[in-house]
Amino acid sequence: MKVGVIMVNYKNPKELRLTIRKGDYQDQTVGLCPGFVQTNLVILPSKYAIDFAAFCVRNPKPCPLLDISSPGKYNTYLADGADLRTDLSKYHIYRNGKLESVCNEVKSIWRDDYVCFLLGCSHTFEPFLLSAGIPLRYQEQNIHLSLYNTNIELFPVGPFKGTVIVSMRPIPKEKVAQATVISARYPRVHGGPLHIGNPSLIGVDLDDQYVGDRVNFLPGDVPVFWACGVTPQHIALKVKIPYMITHAPGHMFVTDFLAEDIG
Amino acid sequence: MKVGVIMVNYKNPKELRLTIRKGDYQDQTVGLCPGFVQTNLVILPSKYAIDFAAFCVRNPKPCPLLDISSPGKYNTYLADGADLRTDLSKYHIYRNGKLESVCNEVKSIWRDDYVCFLLGCSHTFEPFLLSAGIPLRYQEQNIHLSLYNTNIELFPVGPFKGTVIVSMRPIPKEKVAQATVISARYPRVHGGPLHIGNPSLIGVDLDDQYVGDRVNFLPGDVPVFWACGVTPQHIALKVKIPYMITHAPGHMFVTDFLAEDIG
Repeated sequence: MKVGVIMVNYKNPKELRLTIRKGDYQDQTVGLCPGFVQTNLVILPSKYAIDFAAFCVRNPKPCPLLDISSPGKYNTYLADGADLRTDLSKYHIYRNGKLESVCNEVKSIWRDDYVCFLLGCSHTFEPFLLSAGIPLRYQEQNIHLSLYNTNIELFPVGPFKGTVIVSMRPIPKEKVAQATVISARYPRVHGGPLHIGNPSLIGVDLDDQYVGDRVNFLPGDVPVFWACGVTPQHIALKVKIPYMITHAPGHMFVTDFLAEDIG
Repeated sequence: MKVGVIMVNYKNPKELRLTIRKGDYQDQTVGLCPGFVQTNLVILPSKYAIDFAAFCVRNPKPCPLLDISSPGKYNTYLADGADLRTDLSKYHIYRNGKLESVCNEVKSIWRDDYVCFLLGCSHTFEPFLLSAGIPLRYQEQNIHLSLYNTNIELFPVGPFKGTVIVSMRPIPKEKVAQATVISARYPRVHGGPLHIGNPSLIGVDLDDQYVGDRVNFLPGDVPVFWACGVTPQHIALKVKIPYMITHAPGHMFVTDFLAEDIG
């Protein structure tokens, strides 16, 4: 992941989305447009839409719903003129719980019964941690953020049930309280941590990532776990929903809303 | 409204729900089970469910979604063993935007395509205001809380569009900041005020209530306006959704969750 390179580009979300739409940017969005809300994307046939919406509403910590489209629509109130079929830099298409293909747009396969869900992403609050002098080890080490599965059960709805996926960031022990307070200011992008400290208490083995890389801890670092917006995708895959489109990890949708706008 | 009388009864939400279910309590729930989350109820045919869910998600301040049922279901994760068809003390049934009937249960008219929506209610944070010595004039004056329509436009979705309904409480001017801070701790029951002071700035005439009574101001009181969970009902009526069931104003659903539980 070329974090160091991409962070200097694209201050304006609309410009970024149009560049992606034209096919001129296909890399990750982590670190782009700092301060603006980035979201996860899940697209499901309308048959599953109400149960999926209910699942997110019942589990707001891992699944903070920021928008739902009307069936067949691909716009969002979070971004002027956006087209959710083309304005993300990479999509995953899953069939019966298996990755079928990876693509740069889903306009060509769009159907009138698709419903889009946008969910807050914890990358949104990272610039605020950095501004407060809280280091992000995965960025320093130029690797992907570590995600883990846990033993924390979600409230089930219809076919959707399972456990929470978390992101883990090593935080210097004297900065843990500050990282908690800062992230808690943004409940709609996962808010404060779900767990701090001993990974085994939530069923996590740090050597067994769900997605991402094994990050190195520096002396005095404590593992801090935040609920992750990959959770609903994970659940939909696990219960083998017949057809689902999502953003590719790290390739989020970048909105026009500042983190402060969505309270 | 017999606030003074009912506030001393029913500390336990489950006991209250069962009493209501048996038909032994038919009064308002305002002030009952202090500390526990009370919710507004909207029941719609599943045809409208996704657009209504999206409307709530896009407008979280007036429409904080706390739960959605699967089509045909009437349970909720917010209350053990609850039946949303019988556990509220009064229901309103609307047809084409007009009140058709008022009843004490909707089990006898239940259909398999109904979807229940529970929305946070600002009465939930009132005990915390009272604990901080902030007076509630409508309770002192033994009248109904004043609700007003405003000129604040909501983000539209499908057929749902219109303006925010607010509740208004006169607050002594030296207590306004404290009332703001306390209510803001509970974003899922409307959180902090939408507006403080001059009513005309949000299109409100204090003599023209949408629902409720005209409250008397004491010297030094400032009008403070909170987004109100009656908003989505108001919108569904205004756009003449063919069929809708709601709680009657003041007759909320009382959950097992403490306000602190739902963050």
